[in-house]
Amino acid sequence: MKNSHPLQKARIFVDNKNIGMYNFKNDYAEGAHPLILNKLAESNLEQELGYGEDQYSAAAKQLLRKAIDNDHAAIYFVSGGTQANLLVISHFLRPHEAVISAKTGHIYANETGAIEATGHRVITVTGAEGKVTAQDIEDVMQAHRMRPHVVKPRMLYISNSTELGSIYHKTELQQLQQVCKKHHLLFFIDGARLGHALCASSNDLQLQDIASYADIFYIGGTKNGALLGEAIIFRTAKLADDFDYSLKQKGALLAKGRLLGIQFLTLFTDELYFDLAKHANHMAEKIARSIQAAGYQFLTAPVTNQLFPILPKQLIERLLHNYAFYVWSAIDAEHDAVRIITSWATDPAVVDQFCVDFNHIDQALKAGS
Amino acid sequence: MKNSHPLQKARIFVDNKNIGMYNFKNDYAEGAHPLILNKLAESNLEQELGYGEDQYSAAAKQLLRKAIDNDHAAIYFVSGGTQANLLVISHFLRPHEAVISAKTGHIYANETGAIEATGHRVITVTGAEGKVTAQDIEDVMQAHRMRPHVVKPRMLYISNSTELGSIYHKTELQQLQQVCKKHHLLFFIDGARLGHALCASSNDLQLQDIASYADIFYIGGTKNGALLGEAIIFRTAKLADDFDYSLKQKGALLAKGRLLGIQFLTLFTDELYFDLAKHANHMAEKIARSIQAAGYQFLTAPVTNQLFPILPKQLIERLLHNYAFYVWSAIDAEHDAVRIITSWATDPAVVDQFCVDFNHIDQALKAGS
Amino acid sequence: MKNSHPLQKARIFVDNKNIGMYNFKNDYAEGAHPLILNKLAESNLEQELGYGEDQYSAAAKQLLRKAIDNDHAAIYFVSGGTQANLLVISHFLRPHEAVISAKTGHIYANETGAIEATGHRVITVTGAEGKVTAQDIEDVMQAHRMRPHVVKPRMLYISNSTELGSIYHKTELQQLQQVCKKHHLLFFIDGARLGHALCASSNDLQLQDIASYADIFYIGGTKNGALLGEAIIFRTAKLADDFDYSLKQKGALLAKGRLLGIQFLTLFTDELYFDLAKHANHMAEKIARSIQAAGYQFLTAPVTNQLFPILPKQLIERLLHNYAFYVWSAIDAEHDAVRIITSWATDPAVVDQFCVDFNHIDQALKAGS
Amino acid sequence: MKNSHPLQKARIFVDNKNIGMYNFKNDYAEGAHPLILNKLAESNLEQELGYGEDQYSAAAKQLLRKAIDNDHAAIYFVSGGTQANLLVISHFLRPHEAVISAKTGHIYANETGAIEATGHRVITVTGAEGKVTAQDIEDVMQAHRMRPHVVKPRMLYISNSTELGSIYHKTELQQLQQVCKKHHLLFFIDGARLGHALCASSNDLQLQDIASYADIFYIGGTKNGALLGEAIIFRTAKLADDFDYSLKQKGALLAKGRLLGIQFLTLFTDELYFDLAKHANHMAEKIARSIQAAGYQFLTAPVTNQLFPILPKQLIERLLHNYAFYVWSAIDAEHDAVRIITSWATDPAVVDQFCVDFNHIDQALKAGS
Repeated sequence: MKNSHPLQKARIFVDNKNIGMYNFKNDYAEGAHPLILNKLAESNLEQELGYGEDQYSAAAKQLLRKAIDNDHAAIYFVSGGTQANLLVISHFLRPHEAVISAKTGHIYANETGAIEATGHRVITVTGAEGKVTAQDIEDVMQAHRMRPHVVKPRMLYISNSTELGSIYHKTELQQLQQVCKKHHLLFFIDGARLGHALCASSNDLQLQDIASYADIFYIGGTKNGALLGEAIIFRTAKLADDFDYSLKQKGALLAKGRLLGIQFLTLFTDELYFDLAKHANHMAEKIARSIQAAGYQFLTAPVTNQLFPILPKQLIERLLHNYAFYVWSAIDAEHDAVRIITSWATDPAVVDQFCVDFNHIDQALKAGS
Repeated sequence: MKNSHPLQKARIFVDNKNIGMYNFKNDYAEGAHPLILNKLAESNLEQELGYGEDQYSAAAKQLLRKAIDNDHAAIYFVSGGTQANLLVISHFLRPHEAVISAKTGHIYANETGAIEATGHRVITVTGAEGKVTAQDIEDVMQAHRMRPHVVKPRMLYISNSTELGSIYHKTELQQLQQVCKKHHLLFFIDGARLGHALCASSNDLQLQDIASYADIFYIGGTKNGALLGEAIIFRTAKLADDFDYSLKQKGALLAKGRLLGIQFLTLFTDELYFDLAKHANHMAEKIARSIQAAGYQFLTAPVTNQLFPILPKQLIERLLHNYAFYVWSAIDAEHDAVRIITSWATDPAVVDQFCVDFNHIDQALKAGS
Repeated sequence: MKNSHPLQKARIFVDNKNIGMYNFKNDYAEGAHPLILNKLAESNLEQELGYGEDQYSAAAKQLLRKAIDNDHAAIYFVSGGTQANLLVISHFLRPHEAVISAKTGHIYANETGAIEATGHRVITVTGAEGKVTAQDIEDVMQAHRMRPHVVKPRMLYISNSTELGSIYHKTELQQLQQVCKKHHLLFFIDGARLGHALCASSNDLQLQDIASYADIFYIGGTKNGALLGEAIIFRTAKLADDFDYSLKQKGALLAKGRLLGIQFLTLFTDELYFDLAKHANHMAEKIARSIQAAGYQFLTAPVTNQLFPILPKQLIERLLHNYAFYVWSAIDAEHDAVRIITSWATDPAVVDQFCVDFNHIDQALKAGS
Repeated sequence: MKNSHPLQKARIFVDNKNIGMYNFKNDYAEGAHPLILNKLAESNLEQELGYGEDQYSAAAKQLLRKAIDNDHAAIYFVSGGTQANLLVISHFLRPHEAVISAKTGHIYANETGAIEATGHRVITVTGAEGKVTAQDIEDVMQAHRMRPHVVKPRMLYISNSTELGSIYHKTELQQLQQVCKKHHLLFFIDGARLGHALCASSNDLQLQDIASYADIFYIGGTKNGALLGEAIIFRTAKLADDFDYSLKQKGALLAKGRLLGIQFLTLFTDELYFDLAKHANHMAEKIARSIQAAGYQFLTAPVTNQLFPILPKQLIERLLHNYAFYVWSAIDAEHDAVRIITSWATDPAVVDQFCVDFNHIDQALKAGS
């Protein structure tokens, strides 16, 4: 990472609920990378056009078009993932059309029915490790033949990395793109954690690949160092036709669009975006190795910044004294799966301490104390 | 104003379109008040809970409850005005219910049918100076008696200050509150420019008055010194029942809610919010006096930071060489109304120069040159 | 009229509210033309395919295609006018698009916000005599240029005959079609009372003209002799693409589609549809002549089966003793406009009696008694 | 059955597709019970009020209130089941609220996303035999605790009989009512085939029981002898508050409401409704016995008018030469499940012939020919 680590001067926040605790609950516990704040301060009193017509948004879009190697892409910045998802899906689907997602997909599991609120069904598939397969799509198409008594599948939604921390590989995306073309489905990739996926050690995809497989995708800023912001990218301007209306109608068009433009301009200068994702993944990897070394399994292979280890309940309980994370799901009488997330801002010293604490507690418990 | 003016160190941005121009088009051309950026930087690496559960949002809400003298108010922060409007209106209205607005109201004139997109009609009244009167409400109720063939009016929406720069007075709000109670209408005030309204020289309302007349209202940050953000205030927690679900569903729940909390905490510390609005109004007043002194009329009385003078087309054309503003509406063969907006960040020196330029051009034209 | 009048054997229904009264309130007070009931009985126990795939619907569509001289038209039958309107409009409009209508248009004035409930604004124009002009469209387009802050007009909706009983003439429809093409608007004609329009004495349009000017229109059965039913006609099959899904989704696809098919088959055999409309118009004309002969004016010229005479309040009051009709609007201290509607089933003897009663009362009042 | 069978004088319709075939595909292949047509003809030229305010609708509602032993019930008639479902669900749910259904429930499997089109998620449970259990509800509530990131379950939807021909028993409904009360869920029963459920030999429920367990339910006419029509019944008038607006807005308010009133008045006079359901069930029972006697199993126990026998593919193929029915689902290489439906109008002679043919073919196949 080119920049000195932002947490060197950080202090860990102490509030009533989490006295002295370090938060591994999510990747949006801190603010923004300091370079972003610097740029905001530096440009603060320049007068800019509103509603995304500012020079910083224009420059950021130009940088992104270069990064994906597609001069014809249309790009819009919005505040967050739920907003990006509902905007894209409602913009494309006609009233009787539906979107396909894994049951664990963010649009089905975490967004309060945002898609249905725009009038469309989310058709779910079970999806191993939170992923959708080409066969899943074939099954959905097969199950939706009784026209007009059924909804018409029209879009595939996947997240990469997924909500379970897993990632898609090149052959998988190729197959999904093919099956989408075969069935006239739009292919939409939620990249709220795209950086973490593309920086995973097992990854075989480039940003340009994502841009070539997906009809529409977005690059998440909120979970990788921005205050807020996702960059929605349409393969062609024609695809994005009238999307400006949708942005405004759904309350997503910020008056001070510079706030989003400046952030993506900063994140995509000198590959900061990928450096931040690598840091998060690297922190997770250290934790994962400690857990694996102690002989524990994971719900999904630990490859990005989200870990789902299956641990003894007693071990979990003691860790929770000093570290905040979610107990994810019950496994058996003695074990639960938990979710541990690292971020661009995770303090390496804390991670080291966590590994030490983990081993210490684990060994004590194994020793029967 | 307690703080030295933020524009003292500013430079005027020069781009291709507006070389050397100063922008009077809106009140969101600049970033945020420097104290906000300072606070963001200062707190940047503290770990906070997400989705508005952070300490800054909590502290800002406490401050606002004190400012409106209502301990029971429920408060939520969102990114912008369109979002605030569609959230509040769609949260309260049942499918057959409608909201009443002036035809110039932001929800009817400027938000791409955002309310209708949630399923509800906006019933418009003509509204002198962009304002709704109690009699307008009576007329609407009278016109909607043919149940069930008509929509059911259920909410009144007004903006203060209005989209035409005018403001409501105490007796007007009292009458509107009464007529709303009479007809079982919820009373919702859009305060995107509430600061400018409450700091107008002709104003006779306090923030507490707004909070006591309205069932729901919001205090706009975006147009008065914040990067983004509006604080939606419900008179009681019961009124806000389940509003958290709506926030999430409509894509309005920011992961890093601290961004909004910190801004409102800053704006409502030491009355910064009102100082900024006073500055904007004061800048507008200087311009208005020059225009009045030259003998010109206004579409609506110039009392806040939005001015709508009626000027000769030739005068407008020459002013546009150095200053950016909107030509608002055609008046007659020789005159148009224009819209000039000042902000918390408007440079006093530029305003002085504008007045000099205005007089110079006006006198030259009157002299026939 | 080829068939003996259906009311010859009728008895006037007497209920608690309207003892001995004859109902001129609407054109759906009676059931269906007897030929329809006969056909229903005759075919009753034949087994037919459901959901509009029956032979009667197929035959009726064939008949209608011939009547409009367009083999390529796609046709769907639905239960009523509000259903037809919301189906067509919501099927075609994307989320940010809007439909233009006269303020008196059924979709704005009489359908409980059905269009807005599907997410779309109805943009209203004042419309003399309930009609929209080409200039109205130009004005709307002019007022909706501030993209993306405004809705995008995408469809024109008119009714012929209108809700005020007026009709469109050929040059008017030609101009509307041209302005629609110019601005890329779909042209949709609500023909709930199309029969009455086309049989008006001042009419210069044929059914084929309607079909050639409109992109989509419907022929109303409910108000012209059917139990229920409107035939929605799309100029091409391509225009109707996926409309079957919309029908089902909005609850408009009747399991026993034969009910609709049989009615339109009957109505369009031997021109029954037009005979019924002529009867309704003829009955109205007799009443209109009496009123005109007595020197009274009308809100709109009396040319179809809806009359809006302006009468002295005393005269109205006395007529209401024996005849049911709506008092429509206040004119001045002494006069109101009323609405009198005749139908395919209006009894000629009652109309004669009404004229006698009208003259008698009028003369008595004029004589001061 | 008090009336001679309506099919005695019927002829079997012959069209190109189904020459000489008898249709067991559904229970809406024929028109209406002759008594309904008689009543329509008899009352045809009486003048009635529109929009459900007619005397027949009033009388039918009175009869229904008596039949369910609840004077306080509010009742509305609509055209069909999808319409009834979307009306009730969208009327009650706030934007973030969802309805729970079996995955085979009509609102999820057969209505083109009608509920989602009104903005609400349908949460599905697997449901043995198409039924929902109290435990299913507990599981759903457990899975929806992460407020506000999930939808809020607010209503339970079940159908009785179900889409798989199964029925609910008294203890099941009692348990569902209890779990609904516990979790503040509205309990809504789709009775499109309620007659068939209540007339099943294994049934232990009365119509009054249904009315006491459900907050809202409807009695289906379309699938039991009416041309069209479902009677929606709300336990109290308060529950139905403003439902008239929803009816009109969704295009469900028929101008000639008499058409629906007359049908329910006829169906609930002298228990015709139940006689018709008994006939349908009896016809199915005869077929089921033949199939059982031949040693075949069913997907669900054959208790109502929908049968789902699992048959050898060769047997199915030969039966399809003379009888129309749906092949429902693949079982194994040699067997499919089929769906056979009988109705109020099914001809006993045809059923007898079917049983003869079935046995003949089956024995021939078993004999290897």
